[in-house]
Amino acid sequence: MKMYGNWRSAAAFRVRIALNLKGIAYEEVFLDLDAGDQHKPDFLKINPQGAVPALFDGDGPPLTQSLAILDYLEETRPGVSLLPEEPRARARARSLAQVVACDTHPLYVPRVRTFLMEHYGLPRERMLEFLRNAFTTGLKTLETRLSTEPGTGRFCQGDAVSHADLCLISLWVGTGIFDIETAPYPTVKRIAEELLALDAVARAHPLRQPGAPAS
Amino acid sequence: MKMYGNWRSAAAFRVRIALNLKGIAYEEVFLDLDAGDQHKPDFLKINPQGAVPALFDGDGPPLTQSLAILDYLEETRPGVSLLPEEPRARARARSLAQVVACDTHPLYVPRVRTFLMEHYGLPRERMLEFLRNAFTTGLKTLETRLSTEPGTGRFCQGDAVSHADLCLISLWVGTGIFDIETAPYPTVKRIAEELLALDAVARAHPLRQPGAPAS
Repeated sequence: MKMYGNWRSAAAFRVRIALNLKGIAYEEVFLDLDAGDQHKPDFLKINPQGAVPALFDGDGPPLTQSLAILDYLEETRPGVSLLPEEPRARARARSLAQVVACDTHPLYVPRVRTFLMEHYGLPRERMLEFLRNAFTTGLKTLETRLSTEPGTGRFCQGDAVSHADLCLISLWVGTGIFDIETAPYPTVKRIAEELLALDAVARAHPLRQPGAPAS
Repeated sequence: MKMYGNWRSAAAFRVRIALNLKGIAYEEVFLDLDAGDQHKPDFLKINPQGAVPALFDGDGPPLTQSLAILDYLEETRPGVSLLPEEPRARARARSLAQVVACDTHPLYVPRVRTFLMEHYGLPRERMLEFLRNAFTTGLKTLETRLSTEPGTGRFCQGDAVSHADLCLISLWVGTGIFDIETAPYPTVKRIAEELLALDAVARAHPLRQPGAPAS
């Protein structure tokens, strides 16, 4: 497979982990988001939304949106499953994933940060208050749910890695990048540390991709 | 089934349509979001995120996040299917759904609008510029994809209603509420009109729910 991504994209990180866990060989083309590669005509032909990731499986049309890609991989490469079998457990794993992928991550992507700074004239530090509010709201929801709902195990849903974990860790690594306090979220932290200890996650880590800063 | 929702919630609208199309009987408890019902202790026990919809199927734990609920209904009540069979077509339907449910709708929910007004002191009219940017960015992506990708048919993905359509129409009805210009999106409009002509969609329409204004 061939993926268009970027070292710091939380959505590309989720897909890299799934590909690694399922043992699918892939190459990643790293777009330079700061240089605006995602808005250039060549890439807009691949994804008119101008967003990564975009995944090619053979010569089919590009697959976009990280959660849709995760479900596609689940349906076409079910060997190592990243969703539980039982429908309520699946629904819980998906719901936790969407707390991140729908209600948190889209609030701090570059185009939102740019709009806040350019349209409202907010200096970067004040713009970051919006971003930090998104992070803490998402982390608080995850912590409350993971620490009180009986479905939580070694990972978000039971003892196997699921889509919920891929999303959790994609948010967690952002706390370092954006200097978000993590002490109030011990359950999220415990699961994040379990995940970071997995080779499939470690190899997919943003800081281990081309273009990433040294630390 | 029993759902906690609200007349104007785009996410609850999606789920109502799915329940109607699948012929599943349900009652809806309408929270008063302006009065803050979603942040009261009784509801936070149901969904710690303080967001609708929350769906009860029998005496199981609450199901949350609209896309996770749609997949749960698909897996447990497959009779009338709202996703195509073929994996790439499924992935496209899901990707289009997520353009709305991940990248557009979360940017204009009440908690974001409130944060922009209260934290940055933006007057309502200026806050709405953020909301309108989210709408137009989402609508533009949908229009470009729907008008150029070969998968589009009578509906977003082929000739059968899918999750993509439930999300499209949940965005479309917001263009009326928030006075968003719709002329640049003729393909979105055509599909929206097909959908609004369906009884299952018409009955689920926000303006036909308790608590909605007369027009």
